[in-house]
Amino acid sequence: MKDLFRPRSVAMIGASQVPFKVGTLGVEALTSGQFEGSIYFVNPNREGSIAGRPIYSSIADLPDGVDTFVFAIPPRFIPESLEEAGEKGGRLAVIFSGGFKETGDEGRILEERLRQVADKWSMKIMGPNCLGFVNTSIGLNASFTPAFSRLLPGPVSVITQSGGMGNIILGQLAEVGIGVSKWFSVGNRANIEFADLLSYLGEDPETKIIILFLEGVDDGRRFLTAARNTASKKPVLALLAGYTQAASRCALSHTGSFAVSERIYREALRQAGVLTLESAEEVADVSLALSLIFPWRESKIGLLTTTAGPAIVTASICERNGVEVPLLGPSTRKEIEKIIPAEGYAGNPIDMLATGWADPITYVKVSDILLREEAIAGLIVFYFPPRNIDLMFPLNEFGEMAARHQKPVLVAYGDRFCLKRDQEQWARWKIPLYTTPERVARVAVNLSRLARIRQEGCT
Amino acid sequence: MKDLFRPRSVAMIGASQVPFKVGTLGVEALTSGQFEGSIYFVNPNREGSIAGRPIYSSIADLPDGVDTFVFAIPPRFIPESLEEAGEKGGRLAVIFSGGFKETGDEGRILEERLRQVADKWSMKIMGPNCLGFVNTSIGLNASFTPAFSRLLPGPVSVITQSGGMGNIILGQLAEVGIGVSKWFSVGNRANIEFADLLSYLGEDPETKIIILFLEGVDDGRRFLTAARNTASKKPVLALLAGYTQAASRCALSHTGSFAVSERIYREALRQAGVLTLESAEEVADVSLALSLIFPWRESKIGLLTTTAGPAIVTASICERNGVEVPLLGPSTRKEIEKIIPAEGYAGNPIDMLATGWADPITYVKVSDILLREEAIAGLIVFYFPPRNIDLMFPLNEFGEMAARHQKPVLVAYGDRFCLKRDQEQWARWKIPLYTTPERVARVAVNLSRLARIRQEGCT
Repeated sequence: MKDLFRPRSVAMIGASQVPFKVGTLGVEALTSGQFEGSIYFVNPNREGSIAGRPIYSSIADLPDGVDTFVFAIPPRFIPESLEEAGEKGGRLAVIFSGGFKETGDEGRILEERLRQVADKWSMKIMGPNCLGFVNTSIGLNASFTPAFSRLLPGPVSVITQSGGMGNIILGQLAEVGIGVSKWFSVGNRANIEFADLLSYLGEDPETKIIILFLEGVDDGRRFLTAARNTASKKPVLALLAGYTQAASRCALSHTGSFAVSERIYREALRQAGVLTLESAEEVADVSLALSLIFPWRESKIGLLTTTAGPAIVTASICERNGVEVPLLGPSTRKEIEKIIPAEGYAGNPIDMLATGWADPITYVKVSDILLREEAIAGLIVFYFPPRNIDLMFPLNEFGEMAARHQKPVLVAYGDRFCLKRDQEQWARWKIPLYTTPERVARVAVNLSRLARIRQEGCT
Repeated sequence: MKDLFRPRSVAMIGASQVPFKVGTLGVEALTSGQFEGSIYFVNPNREGSIAGRPIYSSIADLPDGVDTFVFAIPPRFIPESLEEAGEKGGRLAVIFSGGFKETGDEGRILEERLRQVADKWSMKIMGPNCLGFVNTSIGLNASFTPAFSRLLPGPVSVITQSGGMGNIILGQLAEVGIGVSKWFSVGNRANIEFADLLSYLGEDPETKIIILFLEGVDDGRRFLTAARNTASKKPVLALLAGYTQAASRCALSHTGSFAVSERIYREALRQAGVLTLESAEEVADVSLALSLIFPWRESKIGLLTTTAGPAIVTASICERNGVEVPLLGPSTRKEIEKIIPAEGYAGNPIDMLATGWADPITYVKVSDILLREEAIAGLIVFYFPPRNIDLMFPLNEFGEMAARHQKPVLVAYGDRFCLKRDQEQWARWKIPLYTTPERVARVAVNLSRLARIRQEGCT
């Protein structure tokens, strides 16, 4: 499967120019990226050209060497077309069209025919009933969402059972400023399973973090084995849905998947070393942290603030969820008390009060003391100045100090505007930046859960 | 207390021009708003003028009729200054300075002196150790956060024990596009308690929704009585923190508050009709919905989508938390099946597939059928077109249709950019707009929790 998603050339069957048709959006997606391979369009009902490329009337007419075929035609025509693609030497078929397993017995038979044709020619099928895939490292957008051509390249890859949720996850990743390597919408999984893609991404040097969106899995045992293998190599984060009544009947109609008991499933994933999370936002927040910070070893953190409330909120969430906020020893407290005002608090959370924003180098000094402390394995810093438009924070001094200690450091700002402006600067120092104390707290909790899960997996 | 936060004139003691001093930020805050009353500055150590206004050397020198005094001077000078303010006829003192109850016995004694002086002159004290207050309806920013002068006026009022968390809540409210009426940072609550402000806001015609951030309450019984009274008049939403070990020792150092057991406290609030929530984001999301939609009566909702995943995620969250997603009756299903493609699903969640964005008037038609159905008390619509930059949604037709049914309707988009652009248009039709299925699902769950809590309160 190594080069399957790195094609030399792509042909799109059912390329169109009629507004809003999947075949039109697919053309726009393919041609708006940076893909340097050849792109061909096939449509027996059209002549002339689309996007400066001639329209071929049949797959047989195409030049040799096309390895990927994208299908945006009605389901009943696909088996025959797939046969032609096989004859032509195709290795991967991406089938956008629905109308297969998810619609009942007739569709199930049609999908079985697809599988037989694919087996005959040793082809792999992405879909049917899927949104395709994206590989940013070769600028390939083989989906029907043109917006994916603007994805920032980066270390995260996504495998999603739902194109819609896959899109939402991408939106949240962009929001926190982290880029994407590969994105797969698996649809009905005619012959490419979660397990296959997990193993592929486990070996993919461009992928550092894997995100899964699951509505149910047919082949649980094979999936869990692949998940365990992959999770031993790099972090695997999962979002689950579809385990309640209405959700599962919709999932069944969606990709023909049955969901087992959610509790059993979560426990199996945990044992496989996979971290299950609660929302696309949480997945993005944790991915950002994993892409930047030093390994999270122990669940003991320091909290440093100029305003107690956010630190209290964070401490509450951390302590309720197994992350300690240990009281500092007397000597460390004394050292900190020398720097912060008498009205402040040095016990942990450390509250510097206004000194923090009036003389922000205090952040560097106090953090340096905290990170030296053995009882503190990581640090969360809250920066909420009263005029949050100006970045007075001594970012480089802070970054250099933090880098010396090689412990994870996270930062929370109150202001979305500043977040967007500053997240890259912080990322250069390997410090992830968040908006609210609740979100940064959830990240600490989840990093600590992940460390625990992976540790258990090793014993 | 009715006119206490609607002063005719404000004097600031400790007005300064030294960068980053609270007295400087306070000047900036006061003068950057639209306040039409008089503003005076007092500072015995300075001469000349600040922001075009003369500096008075003492409170005694001020013209008569100043009703609000804002203090940004060291704590030890405050009792005497407060005495002068009382003599001058002051009714409200806003004390930014810390160094009182939260710092130990000495501070406690100093704070007791404040209370005695205030009692003597029948003055009320906001703080000490607080961020002040804002009243957008008179353009008054009596805080030391100049950014608050740009707050959008609106129906939400906030009472916060932490200036920092209060600031974060304001950020999240702005993010979802809802405005603010009053904002109070209570600090140490020398003689203005949560109960007082709750009762005041309960009667305030400009306030439709109340948000509380609590780290602990000294006078639980009085607070819960006021909460019950107020919650019977308008929705009261609460965020709690500070009930774990590190969090509570920091809360004690912060505003000198002891927290009782969190579980007991949550239950007491529930019985009082107050909805406790988990994050500033959730508080903002629920406030937006409460400010717009028709009352949430029954926990039975319809979900309408063009892509199953987000609806499945929402159904999962709803069903796990007491909101039904009922299967539609055969006649309604048939009606819907006539409109949506055969590969779609009409059971609820309703999946229209690509038809929804290729021919978006389908949203209006299907929603009209759904909202007519008795089994459906509210509707969530998911709009995730493949090119989410263009708003092809027939917003006005949809809005008119929804208004006829007088049932709550919520919408989720995938794209933050479009959200910002469109939220006002949707709000005009009383439809709140959210980014992710998880957030819109949590809103449905919380509205349904609130309806249940308030119903129980009535029986």
